[in-house]
Amino acid sequence: MKKFEEKTYHTEHIFKGKILELNIDSVTLPDGNTSKRELIKHPGAVAVVAITDDNKLVCVEQYRKPMEKSMVEIPAGKLEPNEKPETCALRELEEETGYTTDHLQWITSFYTSPGFADEIVHLYYTDQLKTLAETPEGDVDEFVELMELTLEEAEQLEKEERIHDAKTAYALLYWKLRDGR
Amino acid sequence: MKKFEEKTYHTEHIFKGKILELNIDSVTLPDGNTSKRELIKHPGAVAVVAITDDNKLVCVEQYRKPMEKSMVEIPAGKLEPNEKPETCALRELEEETGYTTDHLQWITSFYTSPGFADEIVHLYYTDQLKTLAETPEGDVDEFVELMELTLEEAEQLEKEERIHDAKTAYALLYWKLRDGR
Repeated sequence: MKKFEEKTYHTEHIFKGKILELNIDSVTLPDGNTSKRELIKHPGAVAVVAITDDNKLVCVEQYRKPMEKSMVEIPAGKLEPNEKPETCALRELEEETGYTTDHLQWITSFYTSPGFADEIVHLYYTDQLKTLAETPEGDVDEFVELMELTLEEAEQLEKEERIHDAKTAYALLYWKLRDGR
Repeated sequence: MKKFEEKTYHTEHIFKGKILELNIDSVTLPDGNTSKRELIKHPGAVAVVAITDDNKLVCVEQYRKPMEKSMVEIPAGKLEPNEKPETCALRELEEETGYTTDHLQWITSFYTSPGFADEIVHLYYTDQLKTLAETPEGDVDEFVELMELTLEEAEQLEKEERIHDAKTAYALLYWKLRDGR
């Protein structure tokens, strides 16, 4: 669907880094006027709603530089070039939590910030976890701590704003609905 | 909470635009090594889960340049400097839909992309809508079309990836849970 399409007549490349790319597109609007759009390109990401045998949600705590605070989130990570989302989801689950699974079920995918970025998050579910004998090495600049939370504990952390991001907020509602609570 | 804090020892200012700011922070990691973080600053946003008297979700369709497609989303918009989230939510609801309300209830707030951006979305709920005599002018470069959807219609649009963003996906689960469906 291209309703209200904004046609680009010029792209200014501002920045290309390790993760992000920033362009400014000059566009023609549906009424013929022009405007500029500040646009972030991102490789996309995955996240996993992983439930343990004793019905706890697997989370990781890590420092999130943009907010200058540590946050509790479901396991997640960026797609490598040409990596399939499901492969990435399993890799991130293993690296961040030491769990693995043979049963990863796709829940949904969504764009996180459609106004300015093309980042998409692919969300998976599993309640069939196995513990790995050895946790594989993750990114050298990533420091995470594993947590396993009951729904009540997770909702408490949400109240305290330690759980404070879109995909984990979505995961909590999804888990609640799935469990019929 | 500052667990696993990454201390900045240098900030490179790459870009400051109408909406976004991009900096690269050089940081010291918890193990003493260093890394770089590509960081987007964003003013924050609001969104409204607005339910009509006949139990439909108020949505708007608009073109989203980062994805080069039009998307159906709940009404939303960026915070103006020093604007209170609740004021902004009411303003965006009025501008984008022609509805207003005296009963706006805060649901939650979440960061959309905690890995690289500080954008926060404040989410509000209302099921007490009144139609304005005249819809106030919105941004001159914004073109939106109003839609009112049953839960079934909204879920169908989600399957078709016309509803395809985090806040609207969250809104559908929230509405479902609230309605006990």
